[in-house]
Amino acid sequence: MKTYIGVDLGGTNVRVAKVNELGEILQEVKSPSYAQEGPKKVMENLMDCIRQIDDLKSCSGIGLGVPGPVDTQKGEMIMATNLPGFEQYPIAKTLEAEFSLPTYVDNDANVAGLAEALVGAGKGLPVVYYITQSTGIGGALIVDGKVVSGRFGHAGEIGNIIIDRNRKKYNHLNVGAVENEASGNALIRIAREKIDPSIDSAAQLFKLVKENHPVALEIVDTMAYDFAMMCSAISHVCDPYAFIIGGGVTKSKDLYFEQMKSYYRDLVHVGMREVDFFTASLSEPGLIGAAMLPVSYGK
Amino acid sequence: MKTYIGVDLGGTNVRVAKVNELGEILQEVKSPSYAQEGPKKVMENLMDCIRQIDDLKSCSGIGLGVPGPVDTQKGEMIMATNLPGFEQYPIAKTLEAEFSLPTYVDNDANVAGLAEALVGAGKGLPVVYYITQSTGIGGALIVDGKVVSGRFGHAGEIGNIIIDRNRKKYNHLNVGAVENEASGNALIRIAREKIDPSIDSAAQLFKLVKENHPVALEIVDTMAYDFAMMCSAISHVCDPYAFIIGGGVTKSKDLYFEQMKSYYRDLVHVGMREVDFFTASLSEPGLIGAAMLPVSYGK
Repeated sequence: MKTYIGVDLGGTNVRVAKVNELGEILQEVKSPSYAQEGPKKVMENLMDCIRQIDDLKSCSGIGLGVPGPVDTQKGEMIMATNLPGFEQYPIAKTLEAEFSLPTYVDNDANVAGLAEALVGAGKGLPVVYYITQSTGIGGALIVDGKVVSGRFGHAGEIGNIIIDRNRKKYNHLNVGAVENEASGNALIRIAREKIDPSIDSAAQLFKLVKENHPVALEIVDTMAYDFAMMCSAISHVCDPYAFIIGGGVTKSKDLYFEQMKSYYRDLVHVGMREVDFFTASLSEPGLIGAAMLPVSYGK
Repeated sequence: MKTYIGVDLGGTNVRVAKVNELGEILQEVKSPSYAQEGPKKVMENLMDCIRQIDDLKSCSGIGLGVPGPVDTQKGEMIMATNLPGFEQYPIAKTLEAEFSLPTYVDNDANVAGLAEALVGAGKGLPVVYYITQSTGIGGALIVDGKVVSGRFGHAGEIGNIIIDRNRKKYNHLNVGAVENEASGNALIRIAREKIDPSIDSAAQLFKLVKENHPVALEIVDTMAYDFAMMCSAISHVCDPYAFIIGGGVTKSKDLYFEQMKSYYRDLVHVGMREVDFFTASLSEPGLIGAAMLPVSYGK
């Protein structure tokens, strides 16, 4: 069975794993990423980690998930807020020169989506839309087992989709951007405004929902509608076979998924109502998905 | 050079063409489609038209564009308002049995988009979003030279994307669906309401814009913003390399495209602003795109 190297390169830590084509992790190496010391140090440390993988020469390729938009044809980051100096740094070329293995880079949401589409909840489906509803909202489009990253590496930046142009401006995102209305952070902000300024987690809000707190119920109901509207926009654009939804907020899915799906059905054409909403199924989508990048390119 | 049969099967007429792999039409046959006489008559007539193509045996495949959503794996229509009785009718299988050529079916907007992506304005681009801004608004997503039709054949049904939830309900589409706010029909409706009940074409409205009629200017400006918001949603979902925009309304593009693009740039992430907006370039995208369907499947 073929094996691949998956790398989850973050601003704090880097993890390297040997993964087989079924998405099973066979070996894992972890280290600080040394992001503040610049690309040269980060890459040297990363290559040291890769060298610790057993029987490295037998692997069929390397894939990396990185925090930010990627020019996937060049294997370089376009923006790199959490990895200073990595804009246009030749990540793929550097690793290919060192290890003589085909190397691919994509952003962390995209590789997580790829993992779910290839070996997770969306296994075998021709079109999958992966969504993380967490601190923020992000996503990934996977068509025929391959990530669609787009011209500027921004495919899946669905947090900026406008679900209601008559909301407040909060940050660099659009007025009424769904991330500002239906993410974990948005829920905390709204709960503080409407219920109690001391609330500091979405979990606290969901606890109040369980207790039938009327304002909490209303906040989560509005979130479910806003989230459904984003999903309806996505469906009209690419009509996925399934949405696969992960992220911290979905830990409370029993408290809003049915309502969200009901709203969704009202916001799409009749023939599209029966799309599947699956919950993300993998414990390590970032690491596994990175390893699946070479697979998606036929390696 | 390989040649293909392209079929544009509509509610009124059917056109059959022999097209080469460059998208050049070599021969064309036209006939009424006899839609009201049911699928058997429509198919018999269609097959008669195909038999009139010279050297039919040397063609490499058949593609059909039809008016409505398609199950592309089965080669059948899912809904067929303008071709009564064609729901679940085995179009592809019937033609394959008769002509022993691989046969593919997709909806007319999708095949038009495919034509533009393969041999038109988007030639060679990995991700293309085609939009028709005409009586209504429709579209198509083409990834790596292949139409993404989606689970229910509804990918590209972008006319139903909500650009402002605080509008009126007009029809089966969503409240604030962009088709009800920025299509040719929408422009006529709004111009009648706000300017003159006798207006009966978008061209009349654009004539007033040229004359600097203040209300006409305002109507078209609002349309440009609404259209841009739809494009921004599409970009956040799949980040196309280019939008290719066709349809009757775009005949007046000089009067609103620059404004629309300016609004678009305000509604996407900084790194996505420089997407290309191309005008559809083919005179016969439906016929050529139908012929390109077998090409897109590697035939």
